[in-house]
Amino acid sequence: MDMAAIGATEKGGNCRLAASDEDKAGRDLFVNWAKKAGCEIIIDHIGNIFAKRLGQNNKAPSIMTGSHLDTQPTGGRFDGVLGVLAGLEIINTLNDHQIKTKVPIEIVCWTNEEGSRFSPAMMGSGVFAGIFSLDEIKNKEDNNGKKLGEELSRIGYSGASIEKQKLSNYFELHIEQGPILENTKKTIGVVTAAQGQRWYEVIITGQESHAGPTPMSLRKDALVGASKIVQEVNRIGNFYAPLACATVGVLDVSPNSRNVIPGKVFLTCDFRHPNDKILTKMDRDLKKFCESIKVEQNLEIDLIDFWYSPPVNFNEDCIRSVRDAANYLNYSFSDIVSGAGHDAVYISKIAPAAMIFVPCENGISHNEIENASPEDCAAGTNVLLHAILNSIK
Amino acid sequence: MDMAAIGATEKGGNCRLAASDEDKAGRDLFVNWAKKAGCEIIIDHIGNIFAKRLGQNNKAPSIMTGSHLDTQPTGGRFDGVLGVLAGLEIINTLNDHQIKTKVPIEIVCWTNEEGSRFSPAMMGSGVFAGIFSLDEIKNKEDNNGKKLGEELSRIGYSGASIEKQKLSNYFELHIEQGPILENTKKTIGVVTAAQGQRWYEVIITGQESHAGPTPMSLRKDALVGASKIVQEVNRIGNFYAPLACATVGVLDVSPNSRNVIPGKVFLTCDFRHPNDKILTKMDRDLKKFCESIKVEQNLEIDLIDFWYSPPVNFNEDCIRSVRDAANYLNYSFSDIVSGAGHDAVYISKIAPAAMIFVPCENGISHNEIENASPEDCAAGTNVLLHAILNSIK
Repeated sequence: MDMAAIGATEKGGNCRLAASDEDKAGRDLFVNWAKKAGCEIIIDHIGNIFAKRLGQNNKAPSIMTGSHLDTQPTGGRFDGVLGVLAGLEIINTLNDHQIKTKVPIEIVCWTNEEGSRFSPAMMGSGVFAGIFSLDEIKNKEDNNGKKLGEELSRIGYSGASIEKQKLSNYFELHIEQGPILENTKKTIGVVTAAQGQRWYEVIITGQESHAGPTPMSLRKDALVGASKIVQEVNRIGNFYAPLACATVGVLDVSPNSRNVIPGKVFLTCDFRHPNDKILTKMDRDLKKFCESIKVEQNLEIDLIDFWYSPPVNFNEDCIRSVRDAANYLNYSFSDIVSGAGHDAVYISKIAPAAMIFVPCENGISHNEIENASPEDCAAGTNVLLHAILNSIK
Repeated sequence: MDMAAIGATEKGGNCRLAASDEDKAGRDLFVNWAKKAGCEIIIDHIGNIFAKRLGQNNKAPSIMTGSHLDTQPTGGRFDGVLGVLAGLEIINTLNDHQIKTKVPIEIVCWTNEEGSRFSPAMMGSGVFAGIFSLDEIKNKEDNNGKKLGEELSRIGYSGASIEKQKLSNYFELHIEQGPILENTKKTIGVVTAAQGQRWYEVIITGQESHAGPTPMSLRKDALVGASKIVQEVNRIGNFYAPLACATVGVLDVSPNSRNVIPGKVFLTCDFRHPNDKILTKMDRDLKKFCESIKVEQNLEIDLIDFWYSPPVNFNEDCIRSVRDAANYLNYSFSDIVSGAGHDAVYISKIAPAAMIFVPCENGISHNEIENASPEDCAAGTNVLLHAILNSIK
């Protein structure tokens, strides 16, 4: 709740956009806490923060845990933050019990997981895992033309380039951000896989014209075309449900004036499915529909493949460490597939990785009213601790 | 084209939003020209500019002509401006021929006809005609919270309160802003009436939530609901076509983030029809549909009646003056109903009024590529001059 006081919003949520003043304040608070817990702090070239607790053999690869501190514009208090602060709690617990682990443990705060201010999402973990190039990401601009690299320097979190790190294992605790655990009354989700994602940008161009004297039959209304695409995206999601998700999240109208027929619309589309073959079918459906609308509505439609992340299976040994921990601690648990993208998805490309989910109230996330119970957060943290201990051979 | 250089946009259009710096520059240029033509300048309390050319009997009510100099954010070079500059051309022509008319002639520039920066539209003529109260309109705010009254003072166009003026007649020349004259190869539109208009604001409230892990069946997606309303508005327009027009011009999504299910959408709707009974049917259709969507999509829908302007028939004598002038000058002409709102609609409540239309290229207006030929502009101005002369008994 001390972290949630930074960038607090009216309705009880948080706004700490990546590389903003609020992000800086959140990072500073974490670094302060981690130093008090005896950790060494390293900032890398893309602003990821590593807080390292030394072990018996410090040449051995670290076990890493963590998540992110940045939020959506109207985000909640738990998304990301839980995973970071659980890491701190584990280190403080090991300190209290004077336990020196065989290998070092590191808590990480990944830069810009949300992708709200700078797009795409999961930039810090993506650069770390070699998915994105450092230069490409540093040059990404927000809506005001500010570059991520410059903003990180401005807030004092553009660190020195560090050598590629080899990790022993990576565990990430996160709220589920969906309703499945709550509906099935489970405390712990053992995350075995993450959905594949396809993101698109669509630009629909018609002809702006006066809303009064332009007869219906002569219009090229970009918003009428866009609304058909919104309907189709929703139809595709429902057609491939229950595992598919399909969302138009952004829609900008130009010139956006009451008495002008919209000449241009920009929208984004987000498709998810755990099965790559079905994700491909969803992709084909959308592309076919856009082609048909072009002709039917006499509009130009530019459909851009913006981002693709194939479905990911997490590491069997890591998953077992999590499952054994939940079992040992006597929490109700079940396997679950992550619907959201997470830093763990990228890290799984370079290290054995798995995730732990805890329920969130009514399955609501990316919302100021996002909530998780102290009991569930504690249970998730306990499982994280024991999964880490289980993974140390 | 000198006026069009002020607030010129990239694609050859204009952006002179009401009470902006560009509006001030446009007004200053007009006032300068009008003074050179020997006119007296009066600014009223809502920033309307009156440029008066004295006649033989200056106690008699003036004949007024004019239009507006403000534009849409991506507007054209002719919408409004033509009517104002045609007034100047007429006065210069009368000067050249040393003709002293029986009654004074006034050119008017009405404040904020477009209603883009400050809503609703036609504020200056509305206050002049007693449709709106001065205080109400002066306190209207733009999206940055700036008040029209303060902005008019800032640009030096908040004049002294003047006595209610009685007018002899009012004529307004304007581009058609639609394709009818061009399609029927007529040079002059004798405007006999103006469509009725109903404007709405709609607020759709669902629940914002993470686009990944929220199953399709549990969503309350405000944008899916909004897109159905856009479709229905378009259906209503087509159903009551060819005389009906129906447009969603503004649509704002919140939080407008790629991976968040939209929790709220604001949109505007603009209905027009020359027959008030059909306009009422369109109104009922929309309201019925919004009620049904509420239940079907599990959304809150607030439908606000934002503005209503009943259909207007212009003055028979004024219409005859226009028709006789077009006939006398041997231009092709036809009667036409205005699809757009115009200052003349409000002025017709307090004085005999009519309008003259000239074609615009491809019927396109409220667009940077808006265009009208010099020949048609000259023809319209000639008809305006002779209509004014015809109307002087």
